[in-house]
Amino acid sequence: MKLVHFSDSGKELYGVSNGDQVICLPTLASILKEPFPSCIEMLIFEGQNESIVKNLMQKATSENLQKATFQLRKLKLLAPIKKPPKIICLGLNYRDHAKEQGKHPSDEPIIFLKPHTTIIGSGENIVKPSFVKQLDYEAELAVVIGKEVKNATIREAEESIFGYTILNDISARDIQFKDRQWTRGKSFDTFAPTGPCITTADQIKDPTNLKIRTWVNRELRQDSTTSNMVLNVFKIVRSLSHVMTLEPCDIISTGTPAGVGFAVKPKPKFLQEGDFIEIIIERIGTLRNRVVEDSGEKSG
Amino acid sequence: MKLVHFSDSGKELYGVSNGDQVICLPTLASILKEPFPSCIEMLIFEGQNESIVKNLMQKATSENLQKATFQLRKLKLLAPIKKPPKIICLGLNYRDHAKEQGKHPSDEPIIFLKPHTTIIGSGENIVKPSFVKQLDYEAELAVVIGKEVKNATIREAEESIFGYTILNDISARDIQFKDRQWTRGKSFDTFAPTGPCITTADQIKDPTNLKIRTWVNRELRQDSTTSNMVLNVFKIVRSLSHVMTLEPCDIISTGTPAGVGFAVKPKPKFLQEGDFIEIIIERIGTLRNRVVEDSGEKSG
Repeated sequence: MKLVHFSDSGKELYGVSNGDQVICLPTLASILKEPFPSCIEMLIFEGQNESIVKNLMQKATSENLQKATFQLRKLKLLAPIKKPPKIICLGLNYRDHAKEQGKHPSDEPIIFLKPHTTIIGSGENIVKPSFVKQLDYEAELAVVIGKEVKNATIREAEESIFGYTILNDISARDIQFKDRQWTRGKSFDTFAPTGPCITTADQIKDPTNLKIRTWVNRELRQDSTTSNMVLNVFKIVRSLSHVMTLEPCDIISTGTPAGVGFAVKPKPKFLQEGDFIEIIIERIGTLRNRVVEDSGEKSG
Repeated sequence: MKLVHFSDSGKELYGVSNGDQVICLPTLASILKEPFPSCIEMLIFEGQNESIVKNLMQKATSENLQKATFQLRKLKLLAPIKKPPKIICLGLNYRDHAKEQGKHPSDEPIIFLKPHTTIIGSGENIVKPSFVKQLDYEAELAVVIGKEVKNATIREAEESIFGYTILNDISARDIQFKDRQWTRGKSFDTFAPTGPCITTADQIKDPTNLKIRTWVNRELRQDSTTSNMVLNVFKIVRSLSHVMTLEPCDIISTGTPAGVGFAVKPKPKFLQEGDFIEIIIERIGTLRNRVVEDSGEKSG
């Protein structure tokens, strides 16, 4: 299933999407007077998520379902998980992206973390601070962890994955390259658009072969597949679980393919105010965000 | 005041410490039948913390106080904040530490984040994975944020600080230096001992001049003062608030002075199984942790 998180009349809701419509699960549960997790995070923590959702659906009449159905285009989408316990991001994990930087891909994950305050949903604005001159995009397949795991085998790693979403690892290259450490330039508020949904793992038979593409103002910039990853999603989860305890709702963003703005030849193409970024990953959907300029103060 | 978080008979409690004893605040509130924040995080979120605590204390008879008093040495201390929304750490922020590495200190904060799963309290064990060969300590003054702040002035930065604690930024140097990005080598479970308490900001008139010292097995290794910082705590908070929204219970670790293990001459002295680390920062207390070896698996 595809889970979407949205707001309606100021209320945060979530449901199962079939493309144009969403069946709101808490609304359906309330109609049926059934107990049900009040948010996606609770649904993930509960485990057995699919059977819980199926049970609820089976109890509903078509009239019940109709009452709980919303039109997707009328909704404001929210980030599927607004406050993940961790957002772990990989660098240099696509062969094509490592090559465009003249670097060797690593045999172990090179990671950094983004703070949860970077998270926004599809349709929300990326805010470019006025002092950032080299804003860039990075389309990434992101894993959503479903259960706690430490020192996992490949099989345990696979079983710990709840689903997948898209993450745009927005980066202030000027700060990233000045610092050498990547974190600060990737940690500004709104620098982690995620969404539009979480596609559960059962719907993605092979996450190691998904098309991933980025358009900026309708110009195709990234066009690759997850088969170009150095470490595939299962190896990434296994490896990270040997460093830290992974928990339900952790997000692991698996690196970006070739075609980022700073590597465009003959001259980098950085993001400007008003630019519109669309990222499509097969079987997940389209993550759309526009860049706006902050009128805020200078770097402190 | 000095706030300590502890467990007694499996229950997590917190209180005000005077050195040997702790007055447990939720216990006292329950005796007085007063509503009171159930954990340190709630106390911090509530704001007006000092007056809330003072009010409670003033309502208590000496008998009430006695009933709510615990002997500190009989308690198991816990990390003051077990799950900070963010743990933001600075690198290269002491002139003496930058020098021992032959590096220039930076005029802007070089940061990385630690996941909350690294947090342990004073008295808990640092677990060294068997595949880590170059384990190291870093004594750091850590700021605890008291209220949300963005794009702060120096004054707003100062006002946003709830208090101070000690953080030991444990680092697997072999992984940190191999990756070049610092995050992975600093993100293992148990790699952020914090405590023993939070000293509220009103008790530390000048955080820019506190002695900070580290002993390993009673051998003095770090002996400096926070006056050697490049960016002082107020400038750090101001600068970070221009990157990201800082929130109540965020921890900002302000970098380490000279004397870390990898810089010892003529030969680095890394931490080994059984080593006992004590860090004292003036007006806060002593953070004590022992290193144990994990019998776990190899790096995934």
